[in-house]
Amino acid sequence: MKIESVDFFYLSMPVVTDAGDGSQDALVVRVRAGGIEAWGECEASPLTSIASFVCPMSHGACRPVGTSVLGADVSSPADIARIAATIQWNSMDLLQAAHTWSGVEIALWDLLGKKHGDPVYKLLGYERAYPKTPYASQLFGDTPQQTLESCRAAREAGFRAVKCGWGPFGRGTLQDDADQLAAAREGIGPDGILLVDAGQIWNQDVDAAAARLPLLEGVKATWLEEPFNGSAYEAYGALADRPSSMKLAGGEAAHNIFMARHTIDIGKVGFIQIDCGRIGGIGPAKQVADYAKAKGVTYVNHTFTSHLALCASIQPYAGLEAHRICEYPVKPQPMAWEMCKTHIAPDRNGEIQLPDRPGLGIELDLAAMKRYLVDAEIKVGGKYLYRTPALD
Amino acid sequence: MKIESVDFFYLSMPVVTDAGDGSQDALVVRVRAGGIEAWGECEASPLTSIASFVCPMSHGACRPVGTSVLGADVSSPADIARIAATIQWNSMDLLQAAHTWSGVEIALWDLLGKKHGDPVYKLLGYERAYPKTPYASQLFGDTPQQTLESCRAAREAGFRAVKCGWGPFGRGTLQDDADQLAAAREGIGPDGILLVDAGQIWNQDVDAAAARLPLLEGVKATWLEEPFNGSAYEAYGALADRPSSMKLAGGEAAHNIFMARHTIDIGKVGFIQIDCGRIGGIGPAKQVADYAKAKGVTYVNHTFTSHLALCASIQPYAGLEAHRICEYPVKPQPMAWEMCKTHIAPDRNGEIQLPDRPGLGIELDLAAMKRYLVDAEIKVGGKYLYRTPALD
Repeated sequence: MKIESVDFFYLSMPVVTDAGDGSQDALVVRVRAGGIEAWGECEASPLTSIASFVCPMSHGACRPVGTSVLGADVSSPADIARIAATIQWNSMDLLQAAHTWSGVEIALWDLLGKKHGDPVYKLLGYERAYPKTPYASQLFGDTPQQTLESCRAAREAGFRAVKCGWGPFGRGTLQDDADQLAAAREGIGPDGILLVDAGQIWNQDVDAAAARLPLLEGVKATWLEEPFNGSAYEAYGALADRPSSMKLAGGEAAHNIFMARHTIDIGKVGFIQIDCGRIGGIGPAKQVADYAKAKGVTYVNHTFTSHLALCASIQPYAGLEAHRICEYPVKPQPMAWEMCKTHIAPDRNGEIQLPDRPGLGIELDLAAMKRYLVDAEIKVGGKYLYRTPALD
Repeated sequence: MKIESVDFFYLSMPVVTDAGDGSQDALVVRVRAGGIEAWGECEASPLTSIASFVCPMSHGACRPVGTSVLGADVSSPADIARIAATIQWNSMDLLQAAHTWSGVEIALWDLLGKKHGDPVYKLLGYERAYPKTPYASQLFGDTPQQTLESCRAAREAGFRAVKCGWGPFGRGTLQDDADQLAAAREGIGPDGILLVDAGQIWNQDVDAAAARLPLLEGVKATWLEEPFNGSAYEAYGALADRPSSMKLAGGEAAHNIFMARHTIDIGKVGFIQIDCGRIGGIGPAKQVADYAKAKGVTYVNHTFTSHLALCASIQPYAGLEAHRICEYPVKPQPMAWEMCKTHIAPDRNGEIQLPDRPGLGIELDLAAMKRYLVDAEIKVGGKYLYRTPALD
């Protein structure tokens, strides 16, 4: 199959706020080849990712992503890997390329799955997809009382695991953080799995992060996520070496498999969190899952947008039974929810399952997407390089 | 001073080819504040970098670069660092941000220098700028004969150091590479400094790179540059550990100081090459220079565009007398040459000196820039986010 077209649809809520909520906009990718239509999603900054697909070439190692994709042959997973390698070379100096390609790559797996009649996880070599335990991924409240209420609400909605992140955490005193953590634990109950996301707040200040370890142990948190800049592997490693039972989680910023491996090997994380919408898609994410398994590190998806992105993010570790925790955006914006007809809902045991359908198995709601579609144009030298395509 | 405006000018040759020649287009940044006009330059993919400055916010950690810059106060180097830290936080999930910010940051140093009447290297804490030995940075010819001729031409033009890179190197047999290397050595003469750039050709294949080490030693090459993917630090380290006197060079892909430090500490390079147009500008590059010096590693600029970018790239190590080798694009395209009125030309000893003038000390040729100016427009939701501004 030759890739006939790659179309980008920029969706957005009418108003985007500065909350740490990644479900406020989305860049959805449609690939058409051999009479099949397939879908993927890029993570973050739709306009910038569109630009890196259509931009004029700067030189041989800084070509737009589009030139390596359009017209390429894709009939097997090896073809997807070959296109990825071409982009790594042809777009070496185009930083945004990894994010842009990620969404296209996801769509290519959807395409292959639909072509062969298999769910993507089978194409990845997994016999079956094991159920995952979704954690309600939400922000710390501005006050401990708000955190308590949102955690209690998540528990009452059936979540056995809750992640609190960002907001005031790490910005005030140790006592402030202790109060927030106690509220979170009270909200999810004594048996709930509590995960804490520091959102890079300490940059590379190991002592500042280490001061919170006893507080985290005190509330039996399962992990401390992203204490530092995503590239500060040594700081991660130094914190992991502190006398504490607390495991670290990180890796979402990785935009290639090297960065993920460094997070494991140098950062010594217990949980490696991969965003398929950033690392180059499902293929490299699967390689990280293999690597993590071999190193005794638990793979976790990273996702904060739609159920299309959620579904893609689970495929790379679908067949790893023991790698059970799964990020699950619990309060997506209406745009991120409505764009999919298919949703991955927790069952009565509070667990989720990937759709047992060809490709990603997520049907999109084009009518809903149209309601959130952003009209965008990019014109260079009098020629349109991008205009929002028709959604039909 | 409040930053009143930041304007991007996308320049390009009329025809851009897929040669590994980064001087075919440029993204020039003009900053105005306190009645002063200052200039910087971003590296690679002008359109994508413009998009990441003007794009709509996706969420609190994915804001356009512009929102952290426009209206900000900048009166000292500490202010530049503060804006950089703000962007690191506010644009955490916007991959292209580092490249975009780099050009703006360079312009802010030019601004401060002009404001205080000092060359940038003095603002960085250097007493004086030492002369550098420029190397003619050029591509391997398609044939050894072409390589011989271009190296001889560089020597005859007064260059004591020549770098050959890319082209056929590493793509054929060992004998092919040996022939190319012998031709280069013959061209530059027995005393010339020969540098070899593999352009990531072996990705992470240590054995393939190691097979070339005896050839490189045979022609007394000073370094082997970028044998691997810029993030494959372990491969660099493994190659450095092979029994050989050959030193490695790398680091140009670093888009933050962590990556540069890893290239030194894990990659064990002997030469750390930093592109100010990628790493976040002159400030972080200076931090890398300090780090390299402390670690006994030689700092080298990376640049392949205009003399504005060249000048910026030398500032971070201008005061390090022993760090002498300097990348110097020897055959820039007319656009990259003509856009500057000021050029940094080798003196009769074949050495170059930074301008002893306030800021970067490079005067631009607006009339020439107009000849290469690309007309671009970005429109979202019916509103222009970018239109090529007037050059006046």
